[in-house]
Amino acid sequence: MKVLVDLCIVPIGVGVSLSGYVAACEKVLSDAGLKTALHSYGTNVEGEWDEVFAAIRKCHELVHGMGAPRITTTIKLGTRVDREQGMEDKVRSVREKMREPLPSP
Amino acid sequence: MKVLVDLCIVPIGVGVSLSGYVAACEKVLSDAGLKTALHSYGTNVEGEWDEVFAAIRKCHELVHGMGAPRITTTIKLGTRVDREQGMEDKVRSVREKMREPLPSP
Amino acid sequence: MKVLVDLCIVPIGVGVSLSGYVAACEKVLSDAGLKTALHSYGTNVEGEWDEVFAAIRKCHELVHGMGAPRITTTIKLGTRVDREQGMEDKVRSVREKMREPLPSP
Amino acid sequence: MKVLVDLCIVPIGVGVSLSGYVAACEKVLSDAGLKTALHSYGTNVEGEWDEVFAAIRKCHELVHGMGAPRITTTIKLGTRVDREQGMEDKVRSVREKMREPLPSP
Repeated sequence: MKVLVDLCIVPIGVGVSLSGYVAACEKVLSDAGLKTALHSYGTNVEGEWDEVFAAIRKCHELVHGMGAPRITTTIKLGTRVDREQGMEDKVRSVREKMREPLPSP
Repeated sequence: MKVLVDLCIVPIGVGVSLSGYVAACEKVLSDAGLKTALHSYGTNVEGEWDEVFAAIRKCHELVHGMGAPRITTTIKLGTRVDREQGMEDKVRSVREKMREPLPSP
Repeated sequence: MKVLVDLCIVPIGVGVSLSGYVAACEKVLSDAGLKTALHSYGTNVEGEWDEVFAAIRKCHELVHGMGAPRITTTIKLGTRVDREQGMEDKVRSVREKMREPLPSP
Repeated sequence: MKVLVDLCIVPIGVGVSLSGYVAACEKVLSDAGLKTALHSYGTNVEGEWDEVFAAIRKCHELVHGMGAPRITTTIKLGTRVDREQGMEDKVRSVREKMREPLPSP
């Protein structure tokens, strides 16, 4: 099953600067061969369910290994069985609708 | 690795009433032997990482099988390596603090 | 507009124990006259939109005032215009469905 | 108080295609003068707390007006008092760290 994930990993107990941990997780995700897109409040990840969640688990293990005693992560995840839809398709679909007149309320 | 999860599964394209799908997922989680606590905006789940995410995958498969073409799920997940902390411990810890005077700002 | 919120406030840069901050926010929410229910990964809050979000803002101000340089908060929020549905109604509705036989896939 | 938000609005009960609703919300946010960046699982929004949440409320009102009986929205929101940090700063900060050698675990 293919999944599109929005991933936001927050190490707790390591001070206020988190970008080094996020960068390390980016490397885990791309080393796992997953398609990713970093944004200002997380990373979008696309791939097979088991591979995506194995990589997220590796991120948690790595961030604990880097010294974080505690982690809280927020994930949004989407699956669909009606059709294939990749990361860029979702953005493209919204942008196309933005060019059309709004449906009247 | 033990994980505490807050899980909120939202089937899309099946109308406005979602409780039947949520009830079906509750059964998947408890059949998997996981500890769960239903609340008004999701379900808290406690267990080993791989078992928890295998059960969440089963929920997605079941909900698609029940007719939902699309699902969007929101997950919060916490891990910690400094000490054991179960579901009830977190609530108890907050309740204890609520009885103490507030730290001065 | 009435709203049901699941609120999870995470102070960053104040160490690993967060329950004191959560307890302080519980007080802000109940002082605002909002209906709340604490669970293991957040707090459910029910009320009018503007009152709920004014109280959440007060929580952020208080937690910063208590010394947290940075906060990341996760919110799920639901509104509906088809009918009234309170916090307990959602849980009751799922529990009722759990007693019924599952719809066949 | 300045806030950085990741916003994901999900109309329920309007079928499987949601991009028209998301596009309408994008317009609400930009009409409100807020800085936004659309990604594959939501929209990042930057602005003053009250303006951002007033715009999110308008999005809910609009989406209900477009026919959605029910909406579930997921928000991540960050505030910080130690320093100014805009949307692009967060991404830049991670990218810089990705060029550095990883801290040894």
